[in-house]
Amino acid sequence: MRIVITGGCGFLGRRVAIRLLEKGCGLGPVDELVLFDNAPPASALPEDKRLTLVTGDIADPDTVARLIAAPDSDGGTDAVFHLAAVVSGQAEADTDLGYRVNLDGTRAVLDACRALGSSPRLVFASSLAVYGGALPPVVGDDTALQPQSSYGTQKAIGELLVNDYSRKGYVDGRVLRLPTVVVRPGLPNRAASTFASSMIREPLTGRDAVCPVSPDTVMALASPRRIVEGLVRALDLPGDAFGASRSLQLPGFSVAVGDMAAALRQAGGAAAHARIRWEPDPAIQAIISSWPRALASPRAEALGFGRDSGIDEVIQAFIEDDLAAQMQIGG
Amino acid sequence: MRIVITGGCGFLGRRVAIRLLEKGCGLGPVDELVLFDNAPPASALPEDKRLTLVTGDIADPDTVARLIAAPDSDGGTDAVFHLAAVVSGQAEADTDLGYRVNLDGTRAVLDACRALGSSPRLVFASSLAVYGGALPPVVGDDTALQPQSSYGTQKAIGELLVNDYSRKGYVDGRVLRLPTVVVRPGLPNRAASTFASSMIREPLTGRDAVCPVSPDTVMALASPRRIVEGLVRALDLPGDAFGASRSLQLPGFSVAVGDMAAALRQAGGAAAHARIRWEPDPAIQAIISSWPRALASPRAEALGFGRDSGIDEVIQAFIEDDLAAQMQIGG
Repeated sequence: MRIVITGGCGFLGRRVAIRLLEKGCGLGPVDELVLFDNAPPASALPEDKRLTLVTGDIADPDTVARLIAAPDSDGGTDAVFHLAAVVSGQAEADTDLGYRVNLDGTRAVLDACRALGSSPRLVFASSLAVYGGALPPVVGDDTALQPQSSYGTQKAIGELLVNDYSRKGYVDGRVLRLPTVVVRPGLPNRAASTFASSMIREPLTGRDAVCPVSPDTVMALASPRRIVEGLVRALDLPGDAFGASRSLQLPGFSVAVGDMAAALRQAGGAAAHARIRWEPDPAIQAIISSWPRALASPRAEALGFGRDSGIDEVIQAFIEDDLAAQMQIGG
Repeated sequence: MRIVITGGCGFLGRRVAIRLLEKGCGLGPVDELVLFDNAPPASALPEDKRLTLVTGDIADPDTVARLIAAPDSDGGTDAVFHLAAVVSGQAEADTDLGYRVNLDGTRAVLDACRALGSSPRLVFASSLAVYGGALPPVVGDDTALQPQSSYGTQKAIGELLVNDYSRKGYVDGRVLRLPTVVVRPGLPNRAASTFASSMIREPLTGRDAVCPVSPDTVMALASPRRIVEGLVRALDLPGDAFGASRSLQLPGFSVAVGDMAAALRQAGGAAAHARIRWEPDPAIQAIISSWPRALASPRAEALGFGRDSGIDEVIQAFIEDDLAAQMQIGG
């Protein structure tokens, strides 16, 4: 089986790749795993002869068609994880780039899959940023999408496209709306939510971090472990398990940013806690406050997608999985 | 003031044009009215020196940029009605054409408006086809969009784009979700709902019509009069009247297809009624059954958008406005 991961050198893409190489997936043996990205990976990839790296522009239809048709392989690509995206802060600041990568890129991937004629499985990463407006207290699959950012708009459009292409049998698509990922290792990025990882990660490695939102801001989060397992589970499930919509809210847990700081103190001590600088940024507060505070995911839970127990478990997982490597990264 | 109507030679575009030429709009005098379409009009347009006809491809960005920038006019275009679309049945059958016209065309219009730098008003016609799945008994602004057709998908994407471009100040957009228009004059088209007009229009002019859905199928309808008035009202309202979302469900009334046939008998007699041939088509039944049966439009009603009293009023309006011209059309 040949699997392509777009955004494959990103944090989630790389972890999905390692997970697939180590444990495989339910569809059969992974013979070839192609990581597609616009730049080489920041972190080392495993030495594995099944792994190929391709760099290029996700918004260029010819590049993506070649990537997925794979004329030299037998029968093209069997499954795609479409994770490539311009993150929220950048898509808001650079409208053209956001639409090019997040909309044109998604169409390029879908059309390349359609051209195969084999209806390959496609896992698309969506986001809480699709929600917005006057949200109910608990948000989930049935909540109307009213994005308040260009990123959320582009992800909502991607969901519509994956559903339409799946209905027509061009792809066997599945969409996961990911909670905010915490603790994301590496360096801060231009996602509006990047602080939620920084405020744990940086103090634990002896660096300062800025928190631009108020301590009473409640966020819906999930750990990298849960999200990677969720993406692979989304690939493994039969398409009809998704029912009338291919879009699924992945479970998340809710925590106030002030309680995240308290959990950091618990795990890293008072010195770590003191490294959080609270510097309110109204623009970021507005984006984050437009996102859901609590998630209901009955469909996903019935399908076996798991949920973290809370922020303490998530910080421990970061310490186990990532802290040593994180210490090596310049900040 | 310069106004552009895309799909301007279509049934609704032509009526909006006539309405604007006769009565103007609330924004100021109409100095120039440009009808853009892919073909010349089937029906005669009024003789009016303010009226210009431009034919071209809505999905070609350069064509649309020239249309809206209007380099020879003072300051480009002040307002756009974006009505051009491939209808539902055709968008379902020809996926590429539907995405080209309904998605690429809408992006071309939005980007041309954005390039003006003046945030022109834009009225976008959406559709009940954006709804679908397990619908609540009454559907409206807050219902989650789950389109069950490519046409509905493309209209839902257009709504997202108009909202994002409005939020960013590139356009001052407003979206009306139109109920099914009945009675549409002229010839049948490739909309899945075309029968709802044909089953009234054809028998009243002595021709047979096919009804492909069961008599107990309930549809949400609005008359051409209401829809044209609604589109002009949507232009006239200040942008902040729309509140958190630029998308608005236009009011409609609900009627069973069997009761439409009974109203036809009332208006046109037993001979007209006998001209309806009931020939079930499961594909059309499936599309129509996925649309809402009843609409709630409290936001639109608070903003003064009106509702037809029922099918009898709508048939009388057709007889008054269109029957004489309809008698001249070959069938």
